[in-house]
Amino acid sequence: MTEETKILLSEKQIPEKWYNIQADLPVPLPPVLHPGTRKPIGPADLEALFPMELIKQEVSTEKWIDIPDEVREIYRLWRPSPLIRARRLEKALGTPAKIYYKYEGASPAGSHKLNTALAQAYYNKKEGVKRLSTETGAGQWGSALSIASSFFGLKCTVYMVKVSYDQKPYRKIMIQSFGAEVFASPSDKTAAGRKILAEMPDTSGSLGIAISEAVEDAAKHDDVKYALGSVLNHVLLHQTVIGLEAQKQMEIAGDYPDVVIGCVGGGSNFAGLAFPFVADKISGKAKNLRLVAVEPSACPTLTKGAYAYDFGDTVGLTPLIKMFTLGHTFVPPGIHAGGLRYHGMAPLVSHLHKLKLIEAVSYLQNPVFEAALLFAKSEGIIPAPEAAHAVKCAVDEAIAAKEAGDKNKTILFNLSGHGHFDMAAYDAYLSGKLKDVAFSDDEMRSALKSLPQI
Amino acid sequence: MTEETKILLSEKQIPEKWYNIQADLPVPLPPVLHPGTRKPIGPADLEALFPMELIKQEVSTEKWIDIPDEVREIYRLWRPSPLIRARRLEKALGTPAKIYYKYEGASPAGSHKLNTALAQAYYNKKEGVKRLSTETGAGQWGSALSIASSFFGLKCTVYMVKVSYDQKPYRKIMIQSFGAEVFASPSDKTAAGRKILAEMPDTSGSLGIAISEAVEDAAKHDDVKYALGSVLNHVLLHQTVIGLEAQKQMEIAGDYPDVVIGCVGGGSNFAGLAFPFVADKISGKAKNLRLVAVEPSACPTLTKGAYAYDFGDTVGLTPLIKMFTLGHTFVPPGIHAGGLRYHGMAPLVSHLHKLKLIEAVSYLQNPVFEAALLFAKSEGIIPAPEAAHAVKCAVDEAIAAKEAGDKNKTILFNLSGHGHFDMAAYDAYLSGKLKDVAFSDDEMRSALKSLPQI
Repeated sequence: MTEETKILLSEKQIPEKWYNIQADLPVPLPPVLHPGTRKPIGPADLEALFPMELIKQEVSTEKWIDIPDEVREIYRLWRPSPLIRARRLEKALGTPAKIYYKYEGASPAGSHKLNTALAQAYYNKKEGVKRLSTETGAGQWGSALSIASSFFGLKCTVYMVKVSYDQKPYRKIMIQSFGAEVFASPSDKTAAGRKILAEMPDTSGSLGIAISEAVEDAAKHDDVKYALGSVLNHVLLHQTVIGLEAQKQMEIAGDYPDVVIGCVGGGSNFAGLAFPFVADKISGKAKNLRLVAVEPSACPTLTKGAYAYDFGDTVGLTPLIKMFTLGHTFVPPGIHAGGLRYHGMAPLVSHLHKLKLIEAVSYLQNPVFEAALLFAKSEGIIPAPEAAHAVKCAVDEAIAAKEAGDKNKTILFNLSGHGHFDMAAYDAYLSGKLKDVAFSDDEMRSALKSLPQI
Repeated sequence: MTEETKILLSEKQIPEKWYNIQADLPVPLPPVLHPGTRKPIGPADLEALFPMELIKQEVSTEKWIDIPDEVREIYRLWRPSPLIRARRLEKALGTPAKIYYKYEGASPAGSHKLNTALAQAYYNKKEGVKRLSTETGAGQWGSALSIASSFFGLKCTVYMVKVSYDQKPYRKIMIQSFGAEVFASPSDKTAAGRKILAEMPDTSGSLGIAISEAVEDAAKHDDVKYALGSVLNHVLLHQTVIGLEAQKQMEIAGDYPDVVIGCVGGGSNFAGLAFPFVADKISGKAKNLRLVAVEPSACPTLTKGAYAYDFGDTVGLTPLIKMFTLGHTFVPPGIHAGGLRYHGMAPLVSHLHKLKLIEAVSYLQNPVFEAALLFAKSEGIIPAPEAAHAVKCAVDEAIAAKEAGDKNKTILFNLSGHGHFDMAAYDAYLSGKLKDVAFSDDEMRSALKSLPQI
């Protein structure tokens, strides 16, 4: 048991393997289907988009997968990330609950995204790829992939959702500073982009649209592969360094969480922290552990979506995956948590939700920013709007403990990134300009209609 | 000797005392003079502006001054800050030199400024002050003081140099997020601001002007005191936690620096890292140690200024201090390292330079940003433009070692802040829009004319 505020590990304690939850699933994942034949796909179907090593990881059921030395070496720049006891927040809330957060914002990219960006850049480089093509919502993934590409000597093209491109010029410049090229999506660089621009010239864009563009770019060029910042199994796998470190750190703190919290857009930062703990729940080590995925009410995939086969992108270029979805044609409103504006959800997170191994909750924007500023004034760090959703949930759990007189509650959440590039969102909140928009029943009906018939 | 990239200390190793270099000076500091009588001032002359405890620290010759528990407790949020071996930068340069940097950008404020902001807010709170008034150049000090004020329950007013207010809206919003009010300086809120606006309606402002406004605000109100982010002895004192930690960390690394580098505007981050090492030089423990202060060629106070009595502000409200100065009426060009746009220099740094215990060098903007991007692409962190001056000097020292075939050189520099709020500067650099302006002989002649006659 330590009295330190920040629980730090040495670089030797950076995990040597990623944890693959597919090895421990009580029911295996439903197969991914080919968009044309609607039959289960094989590795060859993905070769145009991904290097073979990542395709293998995507379907692997090995419990532990080695982290390459070259990746661990760069992890050392900021990992292990700190686990921080939020004593000042506890005091501000007057809660008897203990609140811990894993801080991924200390990475050079400012978020957890670099954990997988480095791995993906490494495997691509090793298999002779020259350029990576990707999309970015809030800009955190684009920043991470541009840094990783620069470190491994790859070119990088980023299709940035238009609303973020306009709201977050600094993210764009950061991506360019590491040598990547950035286009506002939908762009005129791809057939998918041109088609959508023709139909909806004033669209604010969406992750689904940007994915269509990035996938098309990679599919069209032999030495270009596609990199995705969330959703896929291998991406979630790489993020498990977060939870594996957190488990060691909670042990040093002499605690174990009652509830583990993360925000979800595609699902990767939640999965990264939660999956190693889900393993404890499945194995019986922590039967009563709660794992909570937090999403915006404007894009409530897990809490309101259908569990069905759908495309990962808007145009319908990707394989069909079984997931919670609001329909691949849904364009979420331009809320400030751009990283959570995705119509679908990682199949692994969806599957665990269907199996009731995890739960989900959704929040409107304004109460999320209110919690974020309370956190900032207590702990000093201004959260990214995405991570602020996890903060809000942690605050609510701590208040619930206070109200219930529960003196033994331990809360752990993932502060997946800082908000240094999101100050325009805070400005909008402080000046009362943020709109609280919830997903409507009408939207749900049209979402269900858009689902492909399987 | 450790092989870790990041050399970390535990929270117990946060220094318990600040190091006061006034105790070790071979020649004492020249006295500070009253702006009216031109006689040495006493504590009573400063009471309108500062709490008594800080006035005592300003003139103390005690070698060690206790850090209050309340301040150390908040330091724990991010201190001890990491000392990082820049192995990837060394490799990129092909240098045999070892490069270490102390990273102060991991603080909630994004720079070293919070080290003194917390101490100042604490002493003011303890003495019953209700509001703090201050200036900010690049916005780093304003952010730090707004966070510290929020933590200690004080109101806070920030006069932000107009060019930074316009160039860095995100810094302004960050300051507001912590509850402080921000005005572009010169403002119409003070007599000093109105006078300058009448004379130079299009001025981009300067630290000197903003100081005049903040000082006037504090002097006019009984329960308001003034807080300065650099220059003064007590401010530099509070920053010595940086160097004291770095000494312990270098010991863990099994190394001792041959050269210690920091950028200088007012002088505080340089002093914070360097002063504990200057003590080693004075005591004879490290006779050949070099300490290098790095400034912009557009505002080259130490390398081109006069060593003379001058005002700390533009209007002439402050006491007269003996320092290197470009003249209190000098308004530096709107270069992007806003924190380095100050006509004067800390009297302690000036004194050490006069005594030849430290040296100074100046650089133009473009080569500084070039070095900053090389650093970012190697180490991942985008430096603040101010800190980038220290990066440039460290890179030059490493290249010099390579060219001289010197295999035993150890370089230590202060990376005083990150550049997340300075991306507009990187945009200007990347698009070739940054102008390289050096201080001219004409400017020097008019600077000398503006000096008060003592």
